[in-house]
Amino acid sequence: MKAVRLYGPSDMRLDDIPVPEPGPGQVLLEVLSVGVCGSGVHYFVDGGIGEDKVKDPFVIGHEFSARVAALGPGVTGPSVGTRVAVEPAISCGHCEFCEEGHPNLCENILFCSTPPTPGALQEYMVHPAELCFPLPDSVTNDQGAMLEPLGVALHTVRLAKLRPGDTVAILGCGPIGLLTLQVALISGARAVYVTDLVPERLELAQKLGATGTFKADEGDPVAWVHQETGGRGVDVAIEAAWADETVGQATEMARRGGKAIMAGIPRENVALLPAHVVRRKGLTIKYVRRMKHTYPRAIAMVRDGLVDVDALISHRFSLAETAEAYPLVASRQDGAVKVIVEVSC
Amino acid sequence: MKAVRLYGPSDMRLDDIPVPEPGPGQVLLEVLSVGVCGSGVHYFVDGGIGEDKVKDPFVIGHEFSARVAALGPGVTGPSVGTRVAVEPAISCGHCEFCEEGHPNLCENILFCSTPPTPGALQEYMVHPAELCFPLPDSVTNDQGAMLEPLGVALHTVRLAKLRPGDTVAILGCGPIGLLTLQVALISGARAVYVTDLVPERLELAQKLGATGTFKADEGDPVAWVHQETGGRGVDVAIEAAWADETVGQATEMARRGGKAIMAGIPRENVALLPAHVVRRKGLTIKYVRRMKHTYPRAIAMVRDGLVDVDALISHRFSLAETAEAYPLVASRQDGAVKVIVEVSC
Amino acid sequence: MKAVRLYGPSDMRLDDIPVPEPGPGQVLLEVLSVGVCGSGVHYFVDGGIGEDKVKDPFVIGHEFSARVAALGPGVTGPSVGTRVAVEPAISCGHCEFCEEGHPNLCENILFCSTPPTPGALQEYMVHPAELCFPLPDSVTNDQGAMLEPLGVALHTVRLAKLRPGDTVAILGCGPIGLLTLQVALISGARAVYVTDLVPERLELAQKLGATGTFKADEGDPVAWVHQETGGRGVDVAIEAAWADETVGQATEMARRGGKAIMAGIPRENVALLPAHVVRRKGLTIKYVRRMKHTYPRAIAMVRDGLVDVDALISHRFSLAETAEAYPLVASRQDGAVKVIVEVSC
Amino acid sequence: MKAVRLYGPSDMRLDDIPVPEPGPGQVLLEVLSVGVCGSGVHYFVDGGIGEDKVKDPFVIGHEFSARVAALGPGVTGPSVGTRVAVEPAISCGHCEFCEEGHPNLCENILFCSTPPTPGALQEYMVHPAELCFPLPDSVTNDQGAMLEPLGVALHTVRLAKLRPGDTVAILGCGPIGLLTLQVALISGARAVYVTDLVPERLELAQKLGATGTFKADEGDPVAWVHQETGGRGVDVAIEAAWADETVGQATEMARRGGKAIMAGIPRENVALLPAHVVRRKGLTIKYVRRMKHTYPRAIAMVRDGLVDVDALISHRFSLAETAEAYPLVASRQDGAVKVIVEVSC
Repeated sequence: MKAVRLYGPSDMRLDDIPVPEPGPGQVLLEVLSVGVCGSGVHYFVDGGIGEDKVKDPFVIGHEFSARVAALGPGVTGPSVGTRVAVEPAISCGHCEFCEEGHPNLCENILFCSTPPTPGALQEYMVHPAELCFPLPDSVTNDQGAMLEPLGVALHTVRLAKLRPGDTVAILGCGPIGLLTLQVALISGARAVYVTDLVPERLELAQKLGATGTFKADEGDPVAWVHQETGGRGVDVAIEAAWADETVGQATEMARRGGKAIMAGIPRENVALLPAHVVRRKGLTIKYVRRMKHTYPRAIAMVRDGLVDVDALISHRFSLAETAEAYPLVASRQDGAVKVIVEVSC
Repeated sequence: MKAVRLYGPSDMRLDDIPVPEPGPGQVLLEVLSVGVCGSGVHYFVDGGIGEDKVKDPFVIGHEFSARVAALGPGVTGPSVGTRVAVEPAISCGHCEFCEEGHPNLCENILFCSTPPTPGALQEYMVHPAELCFPLPDSVTNDQGAMLEPLGVALHTVRLAKLRPGDTVAILGCGPIGLLTLQVALISGARAVYVTDLVPERLELAQKLGATGTFKADEGDPVAWVHQETGGRGVDVAIEAAWADETVGQATEMARRGGKAIMAGIPRENVALLPAHVVRRKGLTIKYVRRMKHTYPRAIAMVRDGLVDVDALISHRFSLAETAEAYPLVASRQDGAVKVIVEVSC
Repeated sequence: MKAVRLYGPSDMRLDDIPVPEPGPGQVLLEVLSVGVCGSGVHYFVDGGIGEDKVKDPFVIGHEFSARVAALGPGVTGPSVGTRVAVEPAISCGHCEFCEEGHPNLCENILFCSTPPTPGALQEYMVHPAELCFPLPDSVTNDQGAMLEPLGVALHTVRLAKLRPGDTVAILGCGPIGLLTLQVALISGARAVYVTDLVPERLELAQKLGATGTFKADEGDPVAWVHQETGGRGVDVAIEAAWADETVGQATEMARRGGKAIMAGIPRENVALLPAHVVRRKGLTIKYVRRMKHTYPRAIAMVRDGLVDVDALISHRFSLAETAEAYPLVASRQDGAVKVIVEVSC
Repeated sequence: MKAVRLYGPSDMRLDDIPVPEPGPGQVLLEVLSVGVCGSGVHYFVDGGIGEDKVKDPFVIGHEFSARVAALGPGVTGPSVGTRVAVEPAISCGHCEFCEEGHPNLCENILFCSTPPTPGALQEYMVHPAELCFPLPDSVTNDQGAMLEPLGVALHTVRLAKLRPGDTVAILGCGPIGLLTLQVALISGARAVYVTDLVPERLELAQKLGATGTFKADEGDPVAWVHQETGGRGVDVAIEAAWADETVGQATEMARRGGKAIMAGIPRENVALLPAHVVRRKGLTIKYVRRMKHTYPRAIAMVRDGLVDVDALISHRFSLAETAEAYPLVASRQDGAVKVIVEVSC
């Protein structure tokens, strides 16, 4: 079968490799749609994230839909032919953190597309059956691939514990920012103020319901948020820009006693906080680590039209064209927001 | 001036009484619109609620908008002529509960329309200036009178601590139920199931976004909710029917580990819970006591069109016709939902 | 081997039955000490709890320590000979509630000593290996049997979310009440007021640190708590008396905005709440359903001397004498608090 | 009367100034004992904290007990002669943050010893009557001065939301660290690991119940905490060292999904967090801003012997000797922990 493998920074090749066999508890999946995600771009550009580095040729991609092609030993479902969305994080179920309901913090976690567990940019792959969630007919393959970032957005908003009528700022209009915007608007936010550097993204945010948008390099985004909120700041500021200055900005935008939620993946090893500001406000800062318990909800929300995930899909490529998709996403050019690789259909 | 006074059960008269003088910290208010509310109906029908009984002729009415007519000593605002919504609960600001941020639980509270503090069904009244919140021009007098029940709905949903994608049941489609429905839908609820006895109210709930409705006397509402949720029950069940059987029903509708929020005012002195059911589910039950910190948010939400309060207003009466308004609301006939007494305009 | 089996209300017999074989994932346990618990007394007296009824001869007992006697297929530990405390609830690990961290609410739960899963009043039994927690040498067999009720006390106090300096009332000085008393005192409670009917139990509560005690049939326990707290009521009232009137008393004892935690198992199908009281206080009521995530903590707390579980052990019997133990506990006579059946040592 | 005034960095003089007059709502206080606190040392050494700088000669000192000497207009109590502990933060009671129960975040706050509001290092001062809390006879003047830092410790532990059996690390054994240690131990902590640079302080921590202590410059305190906790880290790490490296250390010591509570006042404008570490753990970070709602509880806890505040008092000076007290505290020499200036008795 065909698989796209990363050999090092910016070196991605289409290879022929054998179809894997599903083990006990696993299913063989025929991959349908795969989203190109920000952490994948980190891998493509830098050859890894933090300590996780690609050594051997490696398949990335962890936002995907698939069709069940075969069942491993002992597996009773989902049945062959079922289209599914796939939770890419394989948690152990037995550590303290899994038992307390935090599989996203599992100390034995394996994650699809983090070595040594290959990702979805291949025609077939194996995965635990219990992490495959059947899709209703009305949810498309591409929508199925969007459930993973939607899950991150749901988890992010859940951490924010919005109260009805809260005001929110979101720094960054990539897919996570735009999905978080939509989830915030149906989860109690009265007003959501959004910043980014790319005009097309800000326009898209406006279409999706943002109360106001600000191009972050054309002024002071912190001052803008304070002006929009009468000097008070927002109840919750959400960093989704994956840039380092936005971490500090989020803390500056939050009101006294407010919250800053950090959803982006930092580039640098050190995050800088304005020490006196965060202390004087008595701020709470929460870091988002993946997500948990979101698939059934996310599927129902897309099925019921509560969230528009299609609006984010800007480009589609075939598996053979994957090596073009990553630089496009990295560039943020041509209106690229969420780029989908359609492996099969 | 004219004032409508309650003399005992079902005995309400239009009297001439003197215009009051605003004391220090108070304003004189020209009353504009007054909503007929459920607790007022309790007063009208029973002559009181629980231990609070009307003895002397008494003015009720605590959902209202007004115009500032004069300022008492030491008051600097809102200025004369300003239209305002009015928080009817006068908390002391100094007891433990006020200081901890729970003025709704103030141990020295005075409440407009609870003896000895007269309510709003009169042409003029006095009230603390700091409890009068200016209305934007685009918010009408009648909408201003709806901010009090909207505040209760906001507080109710706040207590529910909805997570994005939660399912909700609401028992009762009176004004509190219908406002809670709307607030729940913009505060994270993915689906809201609603019960009532009155067909017109269920139709209105459907128009306002209910996922499903059920006429509670035509079957088992608990069974219906379990059927709609695949046997799981809802994350949060909200009792807003002011009936005694709905308290137990709410606990039956909630899922394991779920919540039942009691927003209705009970008729009886004893509430009956299904003891084994609530224990086996590990249920949390919260009782709503008025509201807190809601006016600025509620005003912004009506101004911005997030909640449709006009849809609930079914009838309007003049002050002289007030004695007709209460029996109408008590009857739940003629499509009566929220009935407004327009005192002035 | 010997096993004590319940044949119906008050009919308990010492039988010879075969030693069971551990299946995959299970260990064979040699039972050491077994606590006689309140729910077991329910079984003994009534032949069941609510819908769970004993039909065939049945082994009860779910508070116990044991020694690993053999490992089932695929089990790697704890090794043969290890003394362990045993979590009696076998949760599925895969339902929504397990995944969210609430195995106590598992929808597929099996519970040792609830039909069809036999309990510990027998010389040998089988149980999942992963629910067996090794005991340090310094923790005795009898202490090991106390970890289950201590776990309930820990979970109860956790639900109470005590803040440093809170005041607490505990209704009922059975084992759960006395352990909850101790846990509350090291978890932020500044004062704990305790009620019961049995003088010896109140004395024991006093020894274990209760701030004040009250014999509930010699006056009004609600009035007493209000008097002790200057009329305010307690921050948290915990019902652990398993009596029906104490449910309402707990809600009466709690302050405005306070909490009532229901830890007892009700006798009747209906719990009665003072409807106006709970509403006016804006009360939160939480029902305790078993416990979760407590064994490692509970073991460490006993090992480190933070809780005195030995003080509760009033009587010890052999397995052959078990039929005497249950009536003794049911009677609350002779200073009976926690009665241990020493099966082996 | 005599007053000690700060003229600039390290320049503190004993001056004669007029006795102030209590205004409406105020009392005249005869100052009894004043604690030398860390923020005062910041003032003494640097001439201010962050943007708050001393310009004119200024009286500092905000941890104090006093005796009511006269009542201002309209004040009915506490009566003249009453010994009181004093909440130094004067919040407005009307801003959004006060109303929601967070007077520590008041946007109009005045704080005793922050310009322009003079502090307690003078024989007499004026203060709002409602911020003066009567002391029981058994609570000494010096203990009364310790209630302010004890309040900060209470608020810090409250933010930590300890669960019974949690493990805690405290970085820094100054007064806040040592009081936080004691409060944590009675608020659910099973084990508290403590670091500092000063051997006498670590010895004192050990005496007050620390599970283990570590001299932070003789190895890696983060590695030590992980070793003590079997590699897991602590549930809650509390930074109370007022040093900049300890902020990052606290985040490193916390377990996955744990909390880092920042109680120290930073020296630098920027706080550095290990970006990948905090993200991968999904950490929550909370900044402590003063305290709230603690005086009645703190008084009861000292009166009842739950906390030993006397153990922290290392030195006592007269008002005339105040200029010696601050350098002593700044030096951390001679076993200086809490130094008290006894103004009167």
